[in-house]
Amino acid sequence: MSSITIIGTGNMARAIGTRAVAGGNTVEVMGRDQSKAADLAKALGGGATTGEWGAVPAGDIVIVALLFDGVVPTVARYGDALAGKVIVDISNPFNSTFDGLAHQEQTSVAQEAAKVAPAGASVVKAFNTIFRQVLEKGRPVVFVAGDSAQAKADVAEFVKSLGLRPLDVGDLKMAHWLEGAGLVTVGLVGRGVGHWDFALGVDEFTG
Amino acid sequence: MSSITIIGTGNMARAIGTRAVAGGNTVEVMGRDQSKAADLAKALGGGATTGEWGAVPAGDIVIVALLFDGVVPTVARYGDALAGKVIVDISNPFNSTFDGLAHQEQTSVAQEAAKVAPAGASVVKAFNTIFRQVLEKGRPVVFVAGDSAQAKADVAEFVKSLGLRPLDVGDLKMAHWLEGAGLVTVGLVGRGVGHWDFALGVDEFTG
Repeated sequence: MSSITIIGTGNMARAIGTRAVAGGNTVEVMGRDQSKAADLAKALGGGATTGEWGAVPAGDIVIVALLFDGVVPTVARYGDALAGKVIVDISNPFNSTFDGLAHQEQTSVAQEAAKVAPAGASVVKAFNTIFRQVLEKGRPVVFVAGDSAQAKADVAEFVKSLGLRPLDVGDLKMAHWLEGAGLVTVGLVGRGVGHWDFALGVDEFTG
Repeated sequence: MSSITIIGTGNMARAIGTRAVAGGNTVEVMGRDQSKAADLAKALGGGATTGEWGAVPAGDIVIVALLFDGVVPTVARYGDALAGKVIVDISNPFNSTFDGLAHQEQTSVAQEAAKVAPAGASVVKAFNTIFRQVLEKGRPVVFVAGDSAQAKADVAEFVKSLGLRPLDVGDLKMAHWLEGAGLVTVGLVGRGVGHWDFALGVDEFTG
């Protein structure tokens, strides 16, 4: 059981929060709009609480569930309030045509967030290859990348509490390629798979 | 049933060739070392033939099964011999530490191969997320990217003849992200999955 704070009140915040409560985790919601945060906390139930935007989160794991261009400014805005926290970036920095990343460099939102995060905080990339509706109905694999083994272990424990399988893909620089995997996933919607009810996974052939 | 030429005599050439013959396709093998090509053709059986390095391939689909740094020079070397062919790049341009691509730019071996391919040829990226041993024993998903719908349809038909499921992820520029998906796959070997007997796939939740 983990103690998590979700920054954001949108679809992914709701989907992760719902599974988090169902998994027995302690959940706090923070939103720029305090009333939206309160509404989401109430909807989640399970004793979910509301925190003040920019204050020290109650959760040990802080899931930044914002559109990608809000992640780095928000981590910077929180600043020392995130000291010692595990910060989870779930964003997909797609360009306007959904066929490339918004940044041309070999970086990622997660890596950029790590640059502005306070000392003692660790950034982990996770959940970005999972569409909201899949999180609501299925048991997709959750790819995880980060530089801190302890932070990844904390996130892995949380992921397992959701009934999902965490899969460590490597260091935080792999977040760049997970963001690319997000692009592949979107590409598959209109092409190879033809619907939205799927997620990237792994097929094992150990038999 | 497709007519394919495999350029290369290594492990992936053998694995793809074996499944191709089993799937009833016509197979030609070309190698820099003609005797190795002849040995592989003989080992494949099924009437597999040997072609001369640099000559016009007999197959309509030409699978370049070489180490990544050999792909572009080989397509350039073949030049007009590849006119009208569907060229399949299966390579993974990993750096020496297997945690990044050998090129820093947002390109791919497939896109670079397309730049030197003759008029009328189409390049398709496929198979790069599949380890050789998985191709030998399992039924992994085959992600495919390319700019020509016809070329992708040709490759999809070939992939199906192998008993595998082709999944179109988009245009050839998605080859960059498929190469990144190759990195994710390698990252999973030592981390989240812990063995080599798997491939990236899709988990569908349509129930």
